[in-house]
Amino acid sequence: MSKLLIVGTVAFDAIETPFGKTDKILGGAATYIGLSSARFNIDTGIVSIVGEDFPEEHFNLLTRNGINIDGIEIVKGGKTFFWSGKYHNDLNTRDTLETQLNVLADFYPVVPQKYKDAEFVMLGNLHPLVQLSVLEQISKPTLVVLDTMNFWMDNAWDDLLKVIKRVDVITINDEEARQLTGEHSLVKAARKIAELGPKYVVIKKGEHGALLFNNEQIFFAPALPLEEVFDPTGAGDTFAGGFTGYLAQTGDVSFENMKSAVIYGSGMASFCVEKFGTERMESLGDEEIQSRMKEFKNLTQFDIELSANKAL
Amino acid sequence: MSKLLIVGTVAFDAIETPFGKTDKILGGAATYIGLSSARFNIDTGIVSIVGEDFPEEHFNLLTRNGINIDGIEIVKGGKTFFWSGKYHNDLNTRDTLETQLNVLADFYPVVPQKYKDAEFVMLGNLHPLVQLSVLEQISKPTLVVLDTMNFWMDNAWDDLLKVIKRVDVITINDEEARQLTGEHSLVKAARKIAELGPKYVVIKKGEHGALLFNNEQIFFAPALPLEEVFDPTGAGDTFAGGFTGYLAQTGDVSFENMKSAVIYGSGMASFCVEKFGTERMESLGDEEIQSRMKEFKNLTQFDIELSANKAL
Repeated sequence: MSKLLIVGTVAFDAIETPFGKTDKILGGAATYIGLSSARFNIDTGIVSIVGEDFPEEHFNLLTRNGINIDGIEIVKGGKTFFWSGKYHNDLNTRDTLETQLNVLADFYPVVPQKYKDAEFVMLGNLHPLVQLSVLEQISKPTLVVLDTMNFWMDNAWDDLLKVIKRVDVITINDEEARQLTGEHSLVKAARKIAELGPKYVVIKKGEHGALLFNNEQIFFAPALPLEEVFDPTGAGDTFAGGFTGYLAQTGDVSFENMKSAVIYGSGMASFCVEKFGTERMESLGDEEIQSRMKEFKNLTQFDIELSANKAL
Repeated sequence: MSKLLIVGTVAFDAIETPFGKTDKILGGAATYIGLSSARFNIDTGIVSIVGEDFPEEHFNLLTRNGINIDGIEIVKGGKTFFWSGKYHNDLNTRDTLETQLNVLADFYPVVPQKYKDAEFVMLGNLHPLVQLSVLEQISKPTLVVLDTMNFWMDNAWDDLLKVIKRVDVITINDEEARQLTGEHSLVKAARKIAELGPKYVVIKKGEHGALLFNNEQIFFAPALPLEEVFDPTGAGDTFAGGFTGYLAQTGDVSFENMKSAVIYGSGMASFCVEKFGTERMESLGDEEIQSRMKEFKNLTQFDIELSANKAL
């Protein structure tokens, strides 16, 4: 069974959408990535940091969902990372109301011995040097996936370049890809990003799906058109969890299989947005996932006969 | 060989993009729809109206591309419909600089005898009563496709409802679908639109692809990610031409085949944007189309084994 080592935040989120508000609920990139990847037949471990205020019940939720939490450091007297955000009416954009780094300000991740030989590594959105320090503790990964955001492009560019150079897959959203490269065309942006290191570039377009680039090959996975998007928090990380989880389970990192991984990522993300926070991901069953993947097949697969002679 | 009867504008466009400007060039919804549909193995006829200023060379271009122009009325002393637009830097939005209805202000379309039994009808974007008058001259169409825009929703709502009730497929863009129904979710919007008459709803999302709805079934076709979008003028109409052209050629109006039609529409539209105006569509070859459709296959098709027992 392949091992997937995830580094990222485990946090408290306070979320406001047009449909309601929450107080502090479980959140964080590693939480969402892990709840998604642990649905696959793999060994998921998280490296992260929380404060003394992080309740036992949240740890239990993670372990109950098959996630190894040995790598989550608990800081005595410390406070867990906190994020508060408010979504606009169309749920496509949000404002950050508050960010308290708390214990995240002094995070020097230590990868548990068990995961030092992890075949798959997911570097959730964090300071690039923190991501790099994790990578340097893994002996021989088959695939390293990195997620980042514009904040690091603006504030830690040289450090970001250092870690980007070392990864196989970068996931980034379309605005960030454009900002990073100065290109409007996502094809051109992906090509430029690939020059920085990653052989595979995943550009996430939120409700408009995700693009996968490798050399001159492109694959597109739509987001599932939904009746209700209840809370988009964690969708991108859930995507990453499905993507890496599927690759880790199948052990196949060819471009062809990566297409399926992007579809699984999109499928997992479609569950995440159905309820507040992690609620939907906590109780997700195998049959539901299979059923959702069938929906994706029906949504995208078609039958066209191609012949060289005549137009059709 | 099936007949496709198109009603819509045949016009002069003056276009400005970040890449350049044109003077009056050939344009109009019926022009783009026809240049696209005529690539298929069908009999395409246009019903439209132009002024005396419409040059012979444009007529020749249409006929050279296999379009029957018997239904294009030439108004002695009249001036052809003129539209002038300017695209923003990202090419996603445009401003209309000028619209001169000219002969279009007195357009009472007369369907040529030959096309009164057309199996397929494409009602290009026009005043709903003009669209309705064309429909009433066709005896027994297999499939009627209607395109409309927010201008008619705002200014001719009752008339629009009259014609919407009579068609099988409506094509509309996402903003218009939301305006029309008051729903943000495109799934909900499509459901409401279907209640007005059309069994099939195509919601076009520009660079983000197109959705096809029928009862509770959904299909999605992406737009091809491009290095360069040179001029988006006519892309939506080119989509419509590919969609109806493919359906007319295959004579199969099942939902399954309509998926392929949406893919062909998207494929044809991807050519249109490569050059100014109609230029790319004028010289499009069968092999190029086949090659492009192969790109769409590679872009979207994937292989996932589904089993009921286990997650993957």
